[in-house]
Amino acid sequence: MVPAKTWILKQHFEGFPKDNDFELKLEQLPEPEDGEVLVEAVFLSVDPYMRPFSSVRMQPGDVMIGTQVAKVIQSKNPAFPEGSHVVGRCGWRTHTVSDGTGFIRVLSDWPQAVPLSLALGGIGMPGLTALYGLEEVLAIKPGETLLVNAAAGAVGSVVGQIAKLKGCKVVGSAGSDAKVAYLKELGFDYAFNYKTVPSLEEALKQASPEGYECYFENVGGHFSSVALSQMKQFGRIAVCGGISLYNDKEPQTGPYPHLPMIFKELRMEGFLVGRWEHKNEESLRRLLTWLQEASSS
Amino acid sequence: MVPAKTWILKQHFEGFPKDNDFELKLEQLPEPEDGEVLVEAVFLSVDPYMRPFSSVRMQPGDVMIGTQVAKVIQSKNPAFPEGSHVVGRCGWRTHTVSDGTGFIRVLSDWPQAVPLSLALGGIGMPGLTALYGLEEVLAIKPGETLLVNAAAGAVGSVVGQIAKLKGCKVVGSAGSDAKVAYLKELGFDYAFNYKTVPSLEEALKQASPEGYECYFENVGGHFSSVALSQMKQFGRIAVCGGISLYNDKEPQTGPYPHLPMIFKELRMEGFLVGRWEHKNEESLRRLLTWLQEASSS
Repeated sequence: MVPAKTWILKQHFEGFPKDNDFELKLEQLPEPEDGEVLVEAVFLSVDPYMRPFSSVRMQPGDVMIGTQVAKVIQSKNPAFPEGSHVVGRCGWRTHTVSDGTGFIRVLSDWPQAVPLSLALGGIGMPGLTALYGLEEVLAIKPGETLLVNAAAGAVGSVVGQIAKLKGCKVVGSAGSDAKVAYLKELGFDYAFNYKTVPSLEEALKQASPEGYECYFENVGGHFSSVALSQMKQFGRIAVCGGISLYNDKEPQTGPYPHLPMIFKELRMEGFLVGRWEHKNEESLRRLLTWLQEASSS
Repeated sequence: MVPAKTWILKQHFEGFPKDNDFELKLEQLPEPEDGEVLVEAVFLSVDPYMRPFSSVRMQPGDVMIGTQVAKVIQSKNPAFPEGSHVVGRCGWRTHTVSDGTGFIRVLSDWPQAVPLSLALGGIGMPGLTALYGLEEVLAIKPGETLLVNAAAGAVGSVVGQIAKLKGCKVVGSAGSDAKVAYLKELGFDYAFNYKTVPSLEEALKQASPEGYECYFENVGGHFSSVALSQMKQFGRIAVCGGISLYNDKEPQTGPYPHLPMIFKELRMEGFLVGRWEHKNEESLRRLLTWLQEASSS
């Protein structure tokens, strides 16, 4: 028997998650049987999607959802040898016995110089989300101007960097001066602190007086209404997240988006990263290559 | 000199348009010069788009915008012989002198049995709007379920009929029992009076328990929020109008659409009929053919 620590969702969140919505529980795991492995968590992710997903896909008593990088410490499954690393949707738990369903081997040639935690970040789900949002949903083209909010986040920071690689002008919004400085380091053409600008509308106009072809939406709420008003004709919007809305007890309200949608003929599409799962391996390699090229330059 | 009566926008509308926002004004038109024609209005259109367009594209004192079917009563332009009919954006005026820019000749083989007023309706801009929304924006496929609101309107009634021709299941919402009866006559699979159903959500569920692939949006506001919640995964929404919003003094507010957009991976696109102007002649012929086939069957 192997003891596993798990974080249980004791009750559904109301508003912002609180410590006492969770409970630490000890489980005794059986020895892995033939075809199974025992893995030990190395890195856990904490992603924004967990907040809305918990409401609709979890019951009180469930282990908190989430992906982890884990090390195989005992294996009766040749696909996952001892000592190798996997990325799996194990939730918030130290140890997991599994037949490996849904596990993804960390790229076999993952470079030693690259921290494994990136398999939950830029070379993982958030990086894929950025890539698919830009390529599959927005189909961004060189020379276009892209707006991204929550731009210093796991997804937003990759969005901006890929868009720069693709020859776009990139404008990012974030919630602190330190984050804004980070965005400038990353090569964003323009970045501002949405909490301190006197007017969001003026900030967006100043960053791109001629408007925006593309908008990678991570925030929702008031920001989205102002951003819609700054889109160019035929502007495209990839709705990836709405983090300003996730902790609402009552849904926030704002003006309906119909009038700018109609008069500017905007296209807005929501997406989940899983839609392009069949491309993940190739996409992760592309992300890793970009990272290595940037590190060596 | 030819006297022309014109309706002037005296002041911008505030809330619902009022009689005294308009003023009847007499103009004296010069004789048409070489290359010009004098036309006389036969039918004027009153379309929902006029309400929002008036706010942004008109100044007090302008002749009220709008399209008309007009008869050429004097011609010094061989492209528009006397006695022929044109559709032009002349606004609300009885007589117009013009060099014909923007005039469209009514189809030369327009059948006598078809009222010319349809050139402002099903065989005109509203019919084209319905067609392009369904084919270009939604790309509806046989077997899909389509929701359309303001379904008894100039656009909505054509939307439903074309979608039926294309093998879809069509659900329509309208604001009176007489309109609902009309929708059933037109062959809608399901129609309801949104003003009298106990719950809009239940009405939409009852009409299509499995949800909707396509939603042709003419109304906006509360209806749109409820409809989004009834879309299927990857549902498509063509935003053609938002008539419930046009007369707002203060923008109506409602829940932000981000969460259903993301989790259902919805695609929403606003459009204006002018985007496909190059297809108009062929499209008008298709609409006319459908009308004649229906009349003769």
